[in-house]
Amino acid sequence: MLEKLKEEVYEANLELPKHGLVKYTWGNVSAVDRESSLFVIKPSGVSYDKMKPSDMVVVDFDGNVVEGDLRPSSDTATHAVLYKHYEEIGGIVHTHSTWATIWAQAGLDVPVMGTTHADTFYGSVPCTRFLNQEEIDRGYEAETGNVIIETFKQRNIDVMAVPGVLLKGHAPFTWGKDAKSAVVNSVVLEEVCKMNLFSRQLNSFAEELPQNILDKHYLRKHGKNAYYGQK
Amino acid sequence: MLEKLKEEVYEANLELPKHGLVKYTWGNVSAVDRESSLFVIKPSGVSYDKMKPSDMVVVDFDGNVVEGDLRPSSDTATHAVLYKHYEEIGGIVHTHSTWATIWAQAGLDVPVMGTTHADTFYGSVPCTRFLNQEEIDRGYEAETGNVIIETFKQRNIDVMAVPGVLLKGHAPFTWGKDAKSAVVNSVVLEEVCKMNLFSRQLNSFAEELPQNILDKHYLRKHGKNAYYGQK
Amino acid sequence: MLEKLKEEVYEANLELPKHGLVKYTWGNVSAVDRESSLFVIKPSGVSYDKMKPSDMVVVDFDGNVVEGDLRPSSDTATHAVLYKHYEEIGGIVHTHSTWATIWAQAGLDVPVMGTTHADTFYGSVPCTRFLNQEEIDRGYEAETGNVIIETFKQRNIDVMAVPGVLLKGHAPFTWGKDAKSAVVNSVVLEEVCKMNLFSRQLNSFAEELPQNILDKHYLRKHGKNAYYGQK
Amino acid sequence: MLEKLKEEVYEANLELPKHGLVKYTWGNVSAVDRESSLFVIKPSGVSYDKMKPSDMVVVDFDGNVVEGDLRPSSDTATHAVLYKHYEEIGGIVHTHSTWATIWAQAGLDVPVMGTTHADTFYGSVPCTRFLNQEEIDRGYEAETGNVIIETFKQRNIDVMAVPGVLLKGHAPFTWGKDAKSAVVNSVVLEEVCKMNLFSRQLNSFAEELPQNILDKHYLRKHGKNAYYGQK
Repeated sequence: MLEKLKEEVYEANLELPKHGLVKYTWGNVSAVDRESSLFVIKPSGVSYDKMKPSDMVVVDFDGNVVEGDLRPSSDTATHAVLYKHYEEIGGIVHTHSTWATIWAQAGLDVPVMGTTHADTFYGSVPCTRFLNQEEIDRGYEAETGNVIIETFKQRNIDVMAVPGVLLKGHAPFTWGKDAKSAVVNSVVLEEVCKMNLFSRQLNSFAEELPQNILDKHYLRKHGKNAYYGQK
Repeated sequence: MLEKLKEEVYEANLELPKHGLVKYTWGNVSAVDRESSLFVIKPSGVSYDKMKPSDMVVVDFDGNVVEGDLRPSSDTATHAVLYKHYEEIGGIVHTHSTWATIWAQAGLDVPVMGTTHADTFYGSVPCTRFLNQEEIDRGYEAETGNVIIETFKQRNIDVMAVPGVLLKGHAPFTWGKDAKSAVVNSVVLEEVCKMNLFSRQLNSFAEELPQNILDKHYLRKHGKNAYYGQK
Repeated sequence: MLEKLKEEVYEANLELPKHGLVKYTWGNVSAVDRESSLFVIKPSGVSYDKMKPSDMVVVDFDGNVVEGDLRPSSDTATHAVLYKHYEEIGGIVHTHSTWATIWAQAGLDVPVMGTTHADTFYGSVPCTRFLNQEEIDRGYEAETGNVIIETFKQRNIDVMAVPGVLLKGHAPFTWGKDAKSAVVNSVVLEEVCKMNLFSRQLNSFAEELPQNILDKHYLRKHGKNAYYGQK
Repeated sequence: MLEKLKEEVYEANLELPKHGLVKYTWGNVSAVDRESSLFVIKPSGVSYDKMKPSDMVVVDFDGNVVEGDLRPSSDTATHAVLYKHYEEIGGIVHTHSTWATIWAQAGLDVPVMGTTHADTFYGSVPCTRFLNQEEIDRGYEAETGNVIIETFKQRNIDVMAVPGVLLKGHAPFTWGKDAKSAVVNSVVLEEVCKMNLFSRQLNSFAEELPQNILDKHYLRKHGKNAYYGQK
């Protein structure tokens, strides 16, 4: 069942330690099959060197396991809520990568301070609020998905133009058209978080990137007039 | 004698350089056999690439060598005191890992600023006081164990809920139910120390994690209602 | 066509991830053949593990592709402008290396604070201004080359004595007598940017290197009285 | 001639990139043969992957090459002056390692803030003054050795108890009883410089290690009452 997608999700999970985004099994990647409205996700707490593609778990949009011998990631309900709400999302990544988590713990949005950011994220990467007691009681992981949706809605952000978020006091989620691009977005977010922190320390008056340069860089890589890469 | 435990302790010691927690032979791991009231510890100053499982030294709770041709770690008496006092502890790690040592040198407790911390440590990781002259004269390494016990007692901290400590001006100790989990706790502490330092630099007003989110994250991984990992 | 140069450019591109200057395909190296007034540059968005020397693209000084099946780097026009204007330049590197980009985002020149800098760059590494709307509309990449030329002209800097620049809000470019030395200059600039940031944090009153020590270090490695290295 | 020492010096030089202390050929290690009053040093600007033990150069205490086809390190005269003045020194290392160089550029002594420092350096690691014009003209590298000697003399520091120094605006030198221990001292100094910088950032009031703990840690590893390691 969804063997090709399992292979993709497996491969994408292995990218996380390779890019220094996770230690041990911290972190998880999933990818969706829109036809069947099912997604494939890493099992919970299985070490990366023992994991096989066939260990990936198939889950529906309400977080129910449809196939798999292992328990899915404990963050599965967050992935489910995002896939259900955003039809554009093809893959999702959650890590506690160092520098993005530093910003999440600081509770700050990541401003656009350079073209590395602008090449991938078309505006600030938002930081959510904390969940409240009622939400924690109702279902922490599903409500985590809901607070992401709330954040993008309140600020009127296009979820594919800014494919990532910081959960306050927790860590980042990123997404993309598939598992692989969601991982790339995690790598970029991590690097941008590191660079922006030190740029601001170096110069407290460091300006945000002007809108016209943000436009130029984002649009030379995305949309119908893009001219980066092959083809 | 205790061959299986020696193998475990050997393997756990090799995890230290692999996770970037030590340079050279800085650092040591031990694990206890509760039945015989003996523990196994790395020999002192032996390089990791030459070390064999059979080089591990067997020691009793008063720090006397029971078996082994090599001298045990110079920190052996600290391990002995902790095993004797805390029956729950199965394995102990001491390193001078960079970021935890930075906090130890700063003489500060590590506050809970995010869920990475909350997943493993159920509260601030305390920093001890300096030893005084009398304690240094009486036996520096054993008294180091005693000042850890004093710290946890005075602050009424459950040693298994917060499985680590910073020795002021020195470096961290962590522990766990066995050698392997003690190493994991060292990895987590190191990462948390790095992240918390920069979160506070990024935002001087960064809040500590609310108690209800700390509860949620710690308890979804520990105790009878845990639902992280397999089984 | 220019097979030897393609090999050199290919090799120099592989140096970038090896020295930690790029993630994925961020970054590009080129080298010029002065006889034919053509240069060879990395193709756009091709991953480093799949790239072959024969994938390198041959381009003229107006940025037109002369040979190659793949599209050249999206930054090709910047390289072209620099080769056309500066006859001394043999190779050019563009990366988003972390610490140099941090300075670029801060919008600051990199002052000479030590001999590591002085061994390679004979003075501060300048940071450009932002491009304006008119320049972006006219041709972002070519105008990026022009703003580099403007910066060196206005400040009267010898382009071979200070073989690098920071593009404000963007990232560094470095160059050299060939592709290989341009990469070395990128490695040095990255390291100097990291060191200078923290030297200033450590001591707000840290002095710039005295002119006579800058002279001594630069001139023992460059020019007719150099005595570093073999020969 | 001195084949065994050449092998040791060769091996010690290879340790530098392995421990992340140098990029390219930045850095050099030497070791002395007290019987013949000659020392062996790395050739200048030869890449580490091409270098062979037989490439090491034999030099006398006035810096004259006694044997070797290649030019010795451009810092040879500094090594010569130190070997000539300090009979206790067996090996010397010079690098531009990142964090030690950051302190050198800041022009600050490295205070004892923890036991990692105290295990190896029995007191602050001093930072020299800048050389003046007269000294630069007289012979930059030899005078660099002299300013190290001046620094240790003025402050009455035992050169073997504090086996390292920062050259203001330049970088560290360390030494030891042989090439290998000089490299270890470089590794320790680098780590201590990183930790002390961030400890002070974390807590501006961070105390220096009390003298009695400095004594305890240094003396349990050095001198006749040492009890660290085997034997």
